Amino acid sequence: MTQFFYSNQVFNETIILPEYEAHHALKVLRKNLGDTIIIVDGKGGWYETVLESDNIKNCKLSIVNRKEAFGNPNHYIHIAIAPPKSHDRAEWFVEKAVEIGIQEISFVLTEHSERNNIKLNRIKSRAISSMKQSLKAYLPQINDMLTFNDFVETCSNSLKYIGYMRDENMNFLSGISKPSNNYCVLIGPEGDFMPEEVEQALTLGFQCISLGKSRLRTETAGLAACHILNIINEKKFSDAE
Amino acid sequence: MTQFFYSNQVFNETIILPEYEAHHALKVLRKNLGDTIIIVDGKGGWYETVLESDNIKNCKLSIVNRKEAFGNPNHYIHIAIAPPKSHDRAEWFVEKAVEIGIQEISFVLTEHSERNNIKLNRIKSRAISSMKQSLKAYLPQINDMLTFNDFVETCSNSLKYIGYMRDENMNFLSGISKPSNNYCVLIGPEGDFMPEEVEQALTLGFQCISLGKSRLRTETAGLAACHILNIINEKKFSDAE
Repeated sequence: MTQFFYSNQVFNETIILPEYEAHHALKVLRKNLGDTIIIVDGKGGWYETVLESDNIKNCKLSIVNRKEAFGNPNHYIHIAIAPPKSHDRAEWFVEKAVEIGIQEISFVLTEHSERNNIKLNRIKSRAISSMKQSLKAYLPQINDMLTFNDFVETCSNSLKYIGYMRDENMNFLSGISKPSNNYCVLIGPEGDFMPEEVEQALTLGFQCISLGKSRLRTETAGLAACHILNIINEKKFSDAE
Repeated sequence: MTQFFYSNQVFNETIILPEYEAHHALKVLRKNLGDTIIIVDGKGGWYETVLESDNIKNCKLSIVNRKEAFGNPNHYIHIAIAPPKSHDRAEWFVEKAVEIGIQEISFVLTEHSERNNIKLNRIKSRAISSMKQSLKAYLPQINDMLTFNDFVETCSNSLKYIGYMRDENMNFLSGISKPSNNYCVLIGPEGDFMPEEVEQALTLGFQCISLGKSRLRTETAGLAACHILNIINEKKFSDAE
């Protein structure tokens, strides 16, 4: 089965594998000198390489073929989410969103947030694993925690949505979004946003949306929003009306 | 925030709470005699009750209001899935599918399956927690492991799909499904189905589908299929063409 490795040390003709990736290639998968290895750099670069050295601390590969902007989508999905109570659920969200397809993730501290910190390093390694697993070449931008106020004041995506369970209009995200756009969806904590927070977001150009009839956990709502926007961009959804 | 409890001991006028639910109500949430408690029975029954006894081993509630077929959907989603390598990922799939909305789950032993057993009891308790959490009154039917052959021979849903990554037509499930139907989607293991397995399913009325452009883990694919069918049944998807 196709397998990707990750490196952020890409030079003109060669790539150096980080030690943990080199360990996986050499010790777990027992790759040999001369074997072909596919590398992605998290910025859209895809490289077919040949293993030139079996030194885990300085594992060198020579580039034989390269592609730029590998699998670059014509849309931009940014999910901003109040971190769930458990770190596991935050990491799970990141893993699944990367599999499904996401370009930016923010963590937002809201009035009802159950957690005011995240483990950014763990989250970033989980994103790298998931990018390789799902054969992608782009890592999403993952931002450290911001307050709700700072986030909504600076958020600059073209289409800005806020998931709000108490909104009466129930505009389904699946019903109002169009393809090929630049989206942000803001997802609240288990206790939902405060009405004042929603008011503030609306004055800054956000629109209230619903993700469906079920009450979803925070991380499930984040993933559902990401999946809906990906489906809209597959451009194959038939009119179900 | 609204909270549901679960009991399968519902009588004419009263309900008995199972010990673990009674413990949660009395010890964790410190409910008192006379407090209102909402119970669901996993079969569509929703009950408003009053706490009549604070004995954890025989916690009795009197019914003051009831609804049948609470939140009954006008569709039926059955996901049949090769269990992922880790039990955690299987349980995760069940939790998330119940949140999103699912009526039946089967586990299928395929040629490339990474696991030939599941922990059915743990899976069922995870489904109960998730039903309560997402404020539903129905538990999905959860079937024990069947061989691929036995499964496809007996599967009787009206629309039968099989996710197959190597299929050339790439019929997106989101593009070909219509609302208000009775669906089964069969999801393979990490190594995909064998061509012979796909052949057999096709002769038995299954249709090959794709879930999108990304390579998804088994449990993610199962959830994506379930979510797509739920979105189609929200009947609010606009034509994105």
